[in-house]
Amino acid sequence: MSTNGNKARVRVAVDAMGGDFGPRETVPGVLAALDAHPELHVTLVGEWDAVCGELSKYDTAARPIAVAPSEGKIEDDEQPIAALRRKPRSSIATTMGLLRAGDADMVVSMGSTGATMATAVMALGLLEGLERPCIGGNFLGVAPNTTVVDLGSNVDCRPALLLSFAALGVAFSRRILRIENPRVALLSVGEEASKGSRQVQESHNLFRDSHLNFVGNVEGMDFFTDKADVIVCDGFIGNILIKFAEGLGSALAPLLYRHLAEVLSAEQVKQVAEALWTTTNLPRTMGGPLFGVDGLVMIGHGSSTAAGVAGAIDTGLRCHHLELVEGFRQELAELHHTAVREA
Amino acid sequence: MSTNGNKARVRVAVDAMGGDFGPRETVPGVLAALDAHPELHVTLVGEWDAVCGELSKYDTAARPIAVAPSEGKIEDDEQPIAALRRKPRSSIATTMGLLRAGDADMVVSMGSTGATMATAVMALGLLEGLERPCIGGNFLGVAPNTTVVDLGSNVDCRPALLLSFAALGVAFSRRILRIENPRVALLSVGEEASKGSRQVQESHNLFRDSHLNFVGNVEGMDFFTDKADVIVCDGFIGNILIKFAEGLGSALAPLLYRHLAEVLSAEQVKQVAEALWTTTNLPRTMGGPLFGVDGLVMIGHGSSTAAGVAGAIDTGLRCHHLELVEGFRQELAELHHTAVREA
Repeated sequence: MSTNGNKARVRVAVDAMGGDFGPRETVPGVLAALDAHPELHVTLVGEWDAVCGELSKYDTAARPIAVAPSEGKIEDDEQPIAALRRKPRSSIATTMGLLRAGDADMVVSMGSTGATMATAVMALGLLEGLERPCIGGNFLGVAPNTTVVDLGSNVDCRPALLLSFAALGVAFSRRILRIENPRVALLSVGEEASKGSRQVQESHNLFRDSHLNFVGNVEGMDFFTDKADVIVCDGFIGNILIKFAEGLGSALAPLLYRHLAEVLSAEQVKQVAEALWTTTNLPRTMGGPLFGVDGLVMIGHGSSTAAGVAGAIDTGLRCHHLELVEGFRQELAELHHTAVREA
Repeated sequence: MSTNGNKARVRVAVDAMGGDFGPRETVPGVLAALDAHPELHVTLVGEWDAVCGELSKYDTAARPIAVAPSEGKIEDDEQPIAALRRKPRSSIATTMGLLRAGDADMVVSMGSTGATMATAVMALGLLEGLERPCIGGNFLGVAPNTTVVDLGSNVDCRPALLLSFAALGVAFSRRILRIENPRVALLSVGEEASKGSRQVQESHNLFRDSHLNFVGNVEGMDFFTDKADVIVCDGFIGNILIKFAEGLGSALAPLLYRHLAEVLSAEQVKQVAEALWTTTNLPRTMGGPLFGVDGLVMIGHGSSTAAGVAGAIDTGLRCHHLELVEGFRQELAELHHTAVREA
């Protein structure tokens, strides 16, 4: 694998069928990413006709692209494991197979998050010391240095699982956001250790006794107050928060339009509304890495347009060059090491 | 009690010591409310010196105000029950005593939410069929018709408790927001009944079998999509969401300033920022009723200025005239009646 610098080739496998729009947006997204990053080589995985038909609309001669054939797509409403059995040659399974075989350095998928996670776990395996993968990262443009785990894959987490997610969050904060000694906090309804759900109260003790730089509990407003660099919550809450922020941003846009339409030009209004939207919709423009599997898997938003696809590849390149997966591995080893030493 | 129309006297007891600013803001807030509502009579409860000192700054001759003396204040960081024992003549206890004795039609408090709730439960009692009170209401200016329960008082709720909170939310939606047959939903991470935390999965069946107009599970973006009129969640999540929305709104304001400062006048920028802030900070400007106690208790935001105090009184008047507490009582009776009939 080529992880030794910006100039080395980076091979990306993209599930071209994924997302709400499939090749219509993934293909131009990939082409935009290739324009921006000369070191990229992209394999588009999907149905021949659909992918090549879309590619034929662009000048692709001599560009570093390949197409790999797949059959079928796993939809959002399918149960991932059962669907993977039914469709072993689906686009996501084929894409993940390239990473597993060493023919790609990372995977980018806009498809069903559940199917991407399940395939990743089966094909790549989990990092040592981890029971489940999770989704994490900085999801708010107004809080770009705040990492949140879990953003939506695991509900009813036991405290030990939350602690391992915290370690993954610390790795992301260190490697990607360049924060040296990330402050870790639990999301709760008050700063006091005695406040919060049973899950948080039990986790509080475990976090306090860990080697993490645990600064205690924080509240809903503290995503914006710089009290912590890594905020840890159950995926049930993380999922609700990320969708709530998206929804709120989208709902505020018309309000802004109403207030600004009379005093600004249409172009100016559009700029402000876009800034606001981006601010509450980072994942839609950037994508985010899957935390905890033994390989680099980028998950983009299902509703990504070409810009979102290019953004996810861009974020993926950054995670690749900064060796995020190695960071995950080290933090989990440290967590395990400390726990064994103290036991 | 005078509940028979707009013209009848409405007697409000205000904890003048409550909130971050005490009499400095509660007194002018009350005076503003008196200006707006000629039918009001307000008793300000607090330390003589502090309240009368503040009142002396204004022309109060012949206005419908009284001052009732109290001793001590319960702070946010005190354990409510213990603090109430230590300070039986505290401002909140004295204020609630006026309602209990029939000398007031409603209470307005900007003080510790925990202490206000605990005092209300002890002095007024819970409505029949209810185990605990909760906080609810419409908390987003961009979703003014969406009622949310519980917004922050109860964590780790059992399904039956969530169901009774739902009934209270329906009463609020019907009486205050004038929605005839409110659609009730559970907040989750997917629409499918099989998705979500164990709490939500268990609640789903109970809600489905109830007499409520249950439309299923909704997600974080659905506060803004008009899929449901009453969204039910554990207070742990409600508390985090309400604080998250406040924090996000406050964090977006500087972003707006940056974008608009060059093209708009200072006054125009201020108007837009204020519109945005109000949109994400309804409780700070309006206050909200406590759900489930046998009397009308309005809880204002701790950081309320005079405008927030006047806003909470204003909302309280609306709840009084529309007989919200009677609505709560009826919905709970209906819930209980249906459950008994089906058992």
